[in-house]
Amino acid sequence: MTRKQFEFQSIGVIHSPFKEHAGTPIQPGWGDEPGEGEVEIFEEFSEGLADLEGFDRIWLIFALHRASPAKLKLIPYRDTTERGVFATRAPSRPNPLGISCVKLLEVTGSRLKVAELDILDGTPLFDIKPYSPCFDSWPKAKAGWLDAKAAERERADGRFEGEGQ
Amino acid sequence: MTRKQFEFQSIGVIHSPFKEHAGTPIQPGWGDEPGEGEVEIFEEFSEGLADLEGFDRIWLIFALHRASPAKLKLIPYRDTTERGVFATRAPSRPNPLGISCVKLLEVTGSRLKVAELDILDGTPLFDIKPYSPCFDSWPKAKAGWLDAKAAERERADGRFEGEGQ
Repeated sequence: MTRKQFEFQSIGVIHSPFKEHAGTPIQPGWGDEPGEGEVEIFEEFSEGLADLEGFDRIWLIFALHRASPAKLKLIPYRDTTERGVFATRAPSRPNPLGISCVKLLEVTGSRLKVAELDILDGTPLFDIKPYSPCFDSWPKAKAGWLDAKAAERERADGRFEGEGQ
Repeated sequence: MTRKQFEFQSIGVIHSPFKEHAGTPIQPGWGDEPGEGEVEIFEEFSEGLADLEGFDRIWLIFALHRASPAKLKLIPYRDTTERGVFATRAPSRPNPLGISCVKLLEVTGSRLKVAELDILDGTPLFDIKPYSPCFDSWPKAKAGWLDAKAAERERADGRFEGEGQ
């Protein structure tokens, strides 16, 4: 079994009020701030945004482009102990891909106004998918070490800041 | 603004009972079938699986490696009308990246036993993230055209089958 290589090209860019890791909400809607911003889609893809209005929330799939190099064990923001990276949402991962479910406010041409961002300004976007509670909402799912909440942190610090790709 | 290029390499492979699009559940847990399978992580990454036990569900982020070429407008499985691709979960997208929240049954070394797969056998895996209701569960989010349920289909057909990457 060998690793397979894939190439992806950004389809747009995320404009956000957060310019560096430190102070950025850890997850959408955290940190007592509206986190409003804009998702700008390159013109050639704007036709694909049709029918997004009517969805309260959307998934943004994006490059964690400013994460430090991957670590297999790390201390996540919400804990004080090392955890396996795949049991965390930390950005310093073997494939630095992020997923965030943000609030969709408005669609105008090739721009989406969004809120509850937890994403850095200038982040390259790969995909948008509609959020559906039928597919994505599991309110009673147990969440291992995260349920124990060893750290109540709601905003990032600089621990995973790096050059990225 | 220009497109930026990124390279990702698979960290493992998904073994599933579904060998082709036709008959595969459209979303995790659909289609009256347990959809049990295994996620096999390449040895070099297995340390990163620590602490996954205790999570009921996990996100798999993977290549939609057998999708037909991207279309910006398409008729999704759950509808009878063309929709913008970014308002659908269809596989034929500009960046063929899939996300699925599957049930985690067991972790043994570098293998995860999972259920409620909606993923094809042999799918290259990019990332695993823990599912947390705090971050990911929005049970009341309105879901636009999907809420109207024009088609009750729970399994895929061959409409998006292709060579892929």
